[in-house]
Amino acid sequence: MSDLLEQLRKAVGDSNVVAGDAVHADYTHDETLGAAPQTPLALVLPGSTDEVVEILRCANEQGVPVIARGSGTGLSGAAIPVSDGILLAFDRMNHIREIDTENQVAVVEPGVTLEQLNEQLAPLGLIYPVSPGEQTASLGGNVGTNAGGMRAVRYGVTRHHVLGLEAVLADGTVLRTGGKFVKSSSGYDLTQLLIGSEGTLAVTTEVTVKVQPRPTDSATVLVPFATLAEVTHAVPRIVASGIDPTILEYADALVLSSITSSAGLDLGIPDSVQEAARAYLIVVLEQTSSARLDEDVEHLGTLLESLGAIDVYVLPPHAGSDLIVARERLFFVTKAAGADDIIDAVIPRAAIPEYLARVSELASEHGTFVTGCGHVGDGNVHLGVFQPDAEKRIALEREILRTAIDAGGAVSGEHGIGTAKLGFFLELEDPSALALMRAIKGVFDPKGILGPGRLLGDPPASTATRPTQSDAADGADRSKRATTPGATR
Amino acid sequence: MSDLLEQLRKAVGDSNVVAGDAVHADYTHDETLGAAPQTPLALVLPGSTDEVVEILRCANEQGVPVIARGSGTGLSGAAIPVSDGILLAFDRMNHIREIDTENQVAVVEPGVTLEQLNEQLAPLGLIYPVSPGEQTASLGGNVGTNAGGMRAVRYGVTRHHVLGLEAVLADGTVLRTGGKFVKSSSGYDLTQLLIGSEGTLAVTTEVTVKVQPRPTDSATVLVPFATLAEVTHAVPRIVASGIDPTILEYADALVLSSITSSAGLDLGIPDSVQEAARAYLIVVLEQTSSARLDEDVEHLGTLLESLGAIDVYVLPPHAGSDLIVARERLFFVTKAAGADDIIDAVIPRAAIPEYLARVSELASEHGTFVTGCGHVGDGNVHLGVFQPDAEKRIALEREILRTAIDAGGAVSGEHGIGTAKLGFFLELEDPSALALMRAIKGVFDPKGILGPGRLLGDPPASTATRPTQSDAADGADRSKRATTPGATR
Repeated sequence: MSDLLEQLRKAVGDSNVVAGDAVHADYTHDETLGAAPQTPLALVLPGSTDEVVEILRCANEQGVPVIARGSGTGLSGAAIPVSDGILLAFDRMNHIREIDTENQVAVVEPGVTLEQLNEQLAPLGLIYPVSPGEQTASLGGNVGTNAGGMRAVRYGVTRHHVLGLEAVLADGTVLRTGGKFVKSSSGYDLTQLLIGSEGTLAVTTEVTVKVQPRPTDSATVLVPFATLAEVTHAVPRIVASGIDPTILEYADALVLSSITSSAGLDLGIPDSVQEAARAYLIVVLEQTSSARLDEDVEHLGTLLESLGAIDVYVLPPHAGSDLIVARERLFFVTKAAGADDIIDAVIPRAAIPEYLARVSELASEHGTFVTGCGHVGDGNVHLGVFQPDAEKRIALEREILRTAIDAGGAVSGEHGIGTAKLGFFLELEDPSALALMRAIKGVFDPKGILGPGRLLGDPPASTATRPTQSDAADGADRSKRATTPGATR
Repeated sequence: MSDLLEQLRKAVGDSNVVAGDAVHADYTHDETLGAAPQTPLALVLPGSTDEVVEILRCANEQGVPVIARGSGTGLSGAAIPVSDGILLAFDRMNHIREIDTENQVAVVEPGVTLEQLNEQLAPLGLIYPVSPGEQTASLGGNVGTNAGGMRAVRYGVTRHHVLGLEAVLADGTVLRTGGKFVKSSSGYDLTQLLIGSEGTLAVTTEVTVKVQPRPTDSATVLVPFATLAEVTHAVPRIVASGIDPTILEYADALVLSSITSSAGLDLGIPDSVQEAARAYLIVVLEQTSSARLDEDVEHLGTLLESLGAIDVYVLPPHAGSDLIVARERLFFVTKAAGADDIIDAVIPRAAIPEYLARVSELASEHGTFVTGCGHVGDGNVHLGVFQPDAEKRIALEREILRTAIDAGGAVSGEHGIGTAKLGFFLELEDPSALALMRAIKGVFDPKGILGPGRLLGDPPASTATRPTQSDAADGADRSKRATTPGATR
């Protein structure tokens, strides 16, 4: 062990290997609700791909687990350290290597954050449009979870914007995939295979992403409806209209009131409307000119009125962006309100009404309070589950997720499986698919050192003190810890 | 062997197993230039997923190669039969299972063609926008090669539109991946892994694709330039402008004249302009209203004039669509002109000027005539190579492709590797990536029965009469055969 630390110090320099109590609490967790923090054997901060190669060579030789961590804003536990392993954190690999305006791509190190990238892109009239809520999230982490967010209804998710990767395999081999081009038919798409693999196949050391012209004009429209069913019914109509909204969210009345009041935001909705409204749509439109934007807003308004909206409020620009920021903070509002878990199942968009009705029934049956909001445009529903009893909570969540699978959906739309949803995933996913995934994992990482115990649940070589799935489930009973700001949602 | 045929007949019915001379010549080839036709041991026409399962079980048990075939419009030889194997053709599995307007998806069998799908979508105001030139191409084949085409600059390629697959593994296991949703973070993305795998990992039996509102208004703009360098320089400017063209093609003067004259198309370009023009841009814009379209055309015209265009011709609607159809027929024009091969390397968009200059030098050095055109908006350049001597041609092509790799590109943008580009791919691709691909192939198809000898070059169990890479290279010396219409390009 001291041998390992010595090797690691040689690889990255003494000051970039931290062990024992010297590891700051921020590195012992991500933003997953109810997960137990863990101190790693060693926190290692590489400064280059070559250093990552050296670290992985050491780890692989000795069979030491390696957990990769970006900004620690994940919600599935994929970046929580293991006590007998290395936590590979990319704080130092946070450089934007290139913004190539000719090819409209950016090449970044994995520790670069979304806000950092967009700050550099904005003066060039460009944007990286994937926006998983937390702007301090890293691009490397986004690749790991295939991060989505509110703009996915228009722009897709991380996998639609990553054109190429540099990644290091468990044995230290450097792999380069894809490049500055959007199309290729030259072998299996390893870029796409690595995206969403939650650090279990390789460690990302460089990301090439597509960027695009930044829309110049935008409007935020808030739309109260008397019933949730009307809201969810309206969604496919809006998508089919060709208006192509950038954001298409729903929030039940309780959620909207929580996020506005916690942000001290008065949207000027009359009391009578607020009393009548059970659920809201939040729609953001973007355009390349104010004239086109006005047309689209008008078109949307007419459509929404025909779909039963109580009214249609085009928010003043400042209030509009405040509302979106407040919506992005919803995770923290839900957390502060005492939620014990958050589920982000994805289902076919048109199945949402029936799905939410069933969720509501299940919540009553299980005597548990469940709040709802979500990226309704792309079928990704986020549910806050308020049930401190782990056994009861898991029983309800299993039913909620099974209902999603039965409706043709999947366990997670964007948060990922990690450790937090591992039990559900292993139980609900097609066994043939799981068997293939495990065998692919074996191809990339024969010794199983990368992300053991997450996504596929392969146990690490030495599991002595690693938190198990049931530990994580029990975590809710522990006192809530202070966390670093930010969470992907 | 007679045992195998008997089993196959039992699985799909006597009339759906054809052997020996009874196999029609159409099934012995795809559209690859210079590739030798092959008669399979048996042509088998399954009518259902269950029948595909039975066929693969038999084949896997006996180690018999299986080649999957859609419409046979491929250009890389991936669908050419092997003489000791089964050709699995999807002529009977050509049903559109569902057009789900609520979720904006279509669910189709693999033999459904692009024209068939779009005929059903059009009355609903919907479109499946991937358009690899040949509308008789099948969706199953499109999944195999990750088909692209002229509209990829705006809409992306097949992998950006396929949401889910049903596929049968070599051992007969039925795998379902993805679903009617655009985002998921629930394990490795097996959908994306299968797309572009050219029938070497599994046999696709159902495809779920995203469809979208059909634009109502379009304009085709033809733009002559005095130099090719000006054309290629203009491309990144157009992409950066935010005009978002649906098609952005270039054609050198020779190619444009070939396609217009072979189509009997007079675009009314004055002789003086034709004499001065060395290369053309073809731009198609689409919009949701004629007013917006007019604005975009105006904006584009102003931009192009500032970029040195000799003139800007907005074609009358009929001439515009005739030109696009003529461009789609370019493969046949090039073939009829005696081209011996077509290369479709992809490179970063901004590297095109230097790349084409280098190709031109290489062509002269090798004493070979090379024509050019391509999907310049997405960096996918198509080169017609006129050199009947296989050895000389391969030497030149190797250099042309190596130049693409050195410029940060890949061997094929959309045609695929198949058998035709296999030698180049194995020589030029990163050995670590190839090793991973081969190991993944081993996971899905341990006996190597699916598509042996293509993409990764794994030899089939019994290679006795299968055409080898060098046979294919010699194929150009054989007399050209009549072919069925259609080729993906």
